[in-house]
Amino acid sequence: MSGLFITFEGPEGAGKSTNLRYLADCLRAAGCDPLLTREPGGTPIAEQIRTLLLANHSEQMNSDAELLLMFAARAQHLNQVIRPALAQGRVVISDRFTDATYAYQGGGRGIDMQRIAALETWVQGDLRPDLTLLFDVPVEVGLARAKARSALDRFEQEERAFFDAVRTTYLARAADAPGRYRVIDGSASIEGVQAELQPAINWILERWHA
Amino acid sequence: MSGLFITFEGPEGAGKSTNLRYLADCLRAAGCDPLLTREPGGTPIAEQIRTLLLANHSEQMNSDAELLLMFAARAQHLNQVIRPALAQGRVVISDRFTDATYAYQGGGRGIDMQRIAALETWVQGDLRPDLTLLFDVPVEVGLARAKARSALDRFEQEERAFFDAVRTTYLARAADAPGRYRVIDGSASIEGVQAELQPAINWILERWHA
Repeated sequence: MSGLFITFEGPEGAGKSTNLRYLADCLRAAGCDPLLTREPGGTPIAEQIRTLLLANHSEQMNSDAELLLMFAARAQHLNQVIRPALAQGRVVISDRFTDATYAYQGGGRGIDMQRIAALETWVQGDLRPDLTLLFDVPVEVGLARAKARSALDRFEQEERAFFDAVRTTYLARAADAPGRYRVIDGSASIEGVQAELQPAINWILERWHA
Repeated sequence: MSGLFITFEGPEGAGKSTNLRYLADCLRAAGCDPLLTREPGGTPIAEQIRTLLLANHSEQMNSDAELLLMFAARAQHLNQVIRPALAQGRVVISDRFTDATYAYQGGGRGIDMQRIAALETWVQGDLRPDLTLLFDVPVEVGLARAKARSALDRFEQEERAFFDAVRTTYLARAADAPGRYRVIDGSASIEGVQAELQPAINWILERWHA
């Protein structure tokens, strides 16, 4: 028995969290109890790595070090939480996963995509999400929502060009593998986004019942 | 101008720290001002990763996550401290480096050496120490000294077989590359160890003057 691995991707302020709760509620109403988790984080040790990643430090964090910390948190999360739940046949929904690493560390920081791919294989073997919902919003909309919400973390303080590259990378990855991704318009109304989510909910429930 | 990269290796209680100070004093007496550092650690962010690595946690740390944390700290240390100092022509002496990763995560935890080698190349490119002093002591001697010193960290609480594998791996690596390693008998008297260090001190000063 092998479960389903669903990821939510996109920048801050694109509506990931709200819609993750909505999608989980819809699955529960159909009798499916998904495991909800997030990256970086999802276990006590991985959450400590998250704190280190998001904090402002007295020195610059080297981009290779940042990438290795991301994958260290991922290895912990994957082996302690995600793989065991999938092995039990559960639907696992993670708020961000490796697509975010390509978008932020690859697109945003400019790390060579091949170097990221090498670590992806090192950590994950051939495990990839079954379905990725990419919440897309114009950069200024996401940033304005993130700013209205709370103090900006180390990533949210980046320049505009950083976020442009994050968005471009996310969209390019979705275009390259349309079978795995669904791009959701995060600037639509709540009702509009929820309507866009229905095919994904049906897709999950069909496979979960199967 | 490129400096010299010297590493001190061996288990806790083998006399690394005492003899590192002695060797540094000898170099200073000859007019050479070495940069002394340590792993995991050596920068503010890398020291925070060290704290995470040595602490006891409410969950088991996955061995891949541990290895990636080691290399995350190393990437930070290498790029912020070691490479800039070597580029200035300095002698850099680190209390542990990647040999410790092979010994503890490879030998001790049983991670495949090829997987470690892949990360070593990913992080370091072709940078390797110029000289490695391996302080070797029987396992029970090292453990007794470590216990007499302070409360045991997450690694020091391992089983006897773990430390046997650490020692075996260190000695095998030294035997495989005798040009880079000098094995020092850490159970000898202070005067005996200091006499063993003289050829290494001369080796460093010859190259530093060159």
